[in-house]
Amino acid sequence: MITAAEKFRNREKRKMMIKFFTAGGTIDKIYFDAMSTYQIGAPKIDEILEEARVNFDYEVTSLVKKDSLDLDDQDRKTILDAVAAEPCQRIIITHGTDTMVETAQTLKKARDKTIVLTGAMEPACFKSSDAGFNLGLAAGAVQALAHGVYIAINGRIFNPDNARKNRELKMFESIEDSPL
Amino acid sequence: MITAAEKFRNREKRKMMIKFFTAGGTIDKIYFDAMSTYQIGAPKIDEILEEARVNFDYEVTSLVKKDSLDLDDQDRKTILDAVAAEPCQRIIITHGTDTMVETAQTLKKARDKTIVLTGAMEPACFKSSDAGFNLGLAAGAVQALAHGVYIAINGRIFNPDNARKNRELKMFESIEDSPL
Amino acid sequence: MITAAEKFRNREKRKMMIKFFTAGGTIDKIYFDAMSTYQIGAPKIDEILEEARVNFDYEVTSLVKKDSLDLDDQDRKTILDAVAAEPCQRIIITHGTDTMVETAQTLKKARDKTIVLTGAMEPACFKSSDAGFNLGLAAGAVQALAHGVYIAINGRIFNPDNARKNRELKMFESIEDSPL
Amino acid sequence: MITAAEKFRNREKRKMMIKFFTAGGTIDKIYFDAMSTYQIGAPKIDEILEEARVNFDYEVTSLVKKDSLDLDDQDRKTILDAVAAEPCQRIIITHGTDTMVETAQTLKKARDKTIVLTGAMEPACFKSSDAGFNLGLAAGAVQALAHGVYIAINGRIFNPDNARKNRELKMFESIEDSPL
Repeated sequence: MITAAEKFRNREKRKMMIKFFTAGGTIDKIYFDAMSTYQIGAPKIDEILEEARVNFDYEVTSLVKKDSLDLDDQDRKTILDAVAAEPCQRIIITHGTDTMVETAQTLKKARDKTIVLTGAMEPACFKSSDAGFNLGLAAGAVQALAHGVYIAINGRIFNPDNARKNRELKMFESIEDSPL
Repeated sequence: MITAAEKFRNREKRKMMIKFFTAGGTIDKIYFDAMSTYQIGAPKIDEILEEARVNFDYEVTSLVKKDSLDLDDQDRKTILDAVAAEPCQRIIITHGTDTMVETAQTLKKARDKTIVLTGAMEPACFKSSDAGFNLGLAAGAVQALAHGVYIAINGRIFNPDNARKNRELKMFESIEDSPL
Repeated sequence: MITAAEKFRNREKRKMMIKFFTAGGTIDKIYFDAMSTYQIGAPKIDEILEEARVNFDYEVTSLVKKDSLDLDDQDRKTILDAVAAEPCQRIIITHGTDTMVETAQTLKKARDKTIVLTGAMEPACFKSSDAGFNLGLAAGAVQALAHGVYIAINGRIFNPDNARKNRELKMFESIEDSPL
Repeated sequence: MITAAEKFRNREKRKMMIKFFTAGGTIDKIYFDAMSTYQIGAPKIDEILEEARVNFDYEVTSLVKKDSLDLDDQDRKTILDAVAAEPCQRIIITHGTDTMVETAQTLKKARDKTIVLTGAMEPACFKSSDAGFNLGLAAGAVQALAHGVYIAINGRIFNPDNARKNRELKMFESIEDSPL
């Protein structure tokens, strides 16, 4: 019989690997010039992980570059297929916040993996952004939690069945958090 | 019998609370002027958590303001006593990296809590710093892991018995990571 | 007969005062959330001047909050009237880059003042922005130059008759700079 | 007879060139790790000018890397010799603030050039630093002012004969500014 602590120690023995998929959203939004609209730029994950001096192996694959309100069933299928085909068992997906819960629900079909969705309320290119903290939070969740699908944002790790974005507060909350 | 997922869901039901203790270290280093040396400033945790828009309750208590090479047994006793007396079961301690492992060993005496030590290789006041990511990582660890003592830095969650700072690389590593 | 150096020294004797007018543009653009478009936010001048620890008196008045492509004759009249009525002889105007030259032309009617228009290619709220440098450049120009209207951007001080925005390079240039 | 405006226009006709010399000081201070002291790092000018998207030619030469309290007569001679030998007539020198006035006095011997000394109260690598604004201010001064030696800091352009650092306020002031 192995204790949780022993399992954690064993898991730690090999160099950890995390697979990142990017699916657009505010975290990667950039702004070109006064004649352009906001656009989804190249994923900022590499910069953030370099600044964080992470000591794990990782790969980043960009799947979709859209505001999450524009993601359709085909896009969600693309994400699910990529997750299902991925050999790495620790997966972080950056995603727009407006439909993060919906995508997380879809991904429940992918078993045998720890999948964490995260994103940002303010673009990573802003002086003041939650992007770096959220990726740290997701990295903590993806290596500590059992297989399943989770949402990591606003300092919390949520079960997708119990999470919603409170648009007014610009903050995710547990459904049980709020008065009924 | 409750599954891990159910336990996670239950834990999530009440508004989460994290207690932060600060014990000095590079994360809070600031620089006054050309006639001063580097000094440990006021903890930057509040700023970072505000920028991260966290949706949990928290308190910050400053215990020591020292470079971690200068921490002595009395300082470690101060930290252990504060942790032992703390009613909150989720505790994050910011600490200098040079003796983080030693302090973590001491804290094993505090049972019935999830204690995560973190810090930074570059001060939080720098344009490029790992401080925000590391606090996110610690926040992920402290809410996902069972009671015990952990070190969260360089994108990894380490068991203190299996962690060391590689000074040359300025990076924590698992002892098993490296060739013997 | 007073030399330029003496005039400069005399001018320096009283505590310098600069009047800032803001007229929208990229420098003050912010972004609300995934359901909003980019908007002009509150002027960032105060923050930038505080960070720069300026030792001069100043006032900031917001005149218009628009992308400069949307400024019309009435808006330009508002700016000219404010400049004409202003007792302070050193005036810096933050303005969108796309029609900065046109507004500068209008302001030639305001004599007996040193008027410097500046702005930014990237919003001041971005991690990487030219806003702080440009305001420094404008502050240098407004206290060093004789009465007249100038454009300070891209590290240069331009005569508005000899300046244009090169949209492709996202850079202002002297008309004489470029091959005809 | 040429007016000031015409002279300015003529000067603008060729692509402007600025020579930067770096002489250490807080602007370039960096911090290595908990076992090191603050040190003068590689000049940050290139990064700042790139972020500012400057449209002028420039060269950067590092002359000394010291806290300005440690500069001696030989260092000042090195700076004066470099300035005297420099063909470019627009020179910006980054320098520690504590002895910036003394070095500026020395440089009066270099005639036929516009020489502007600047620096920073907070290192350029800090999230909140006056470095970018000050370099902008110096760039404005160096292209607008007649030959001579100037100090550009705290939003002001000072004649070195009339400037001093107020250590308590961490701010340069005109000697005439303050009550005697």
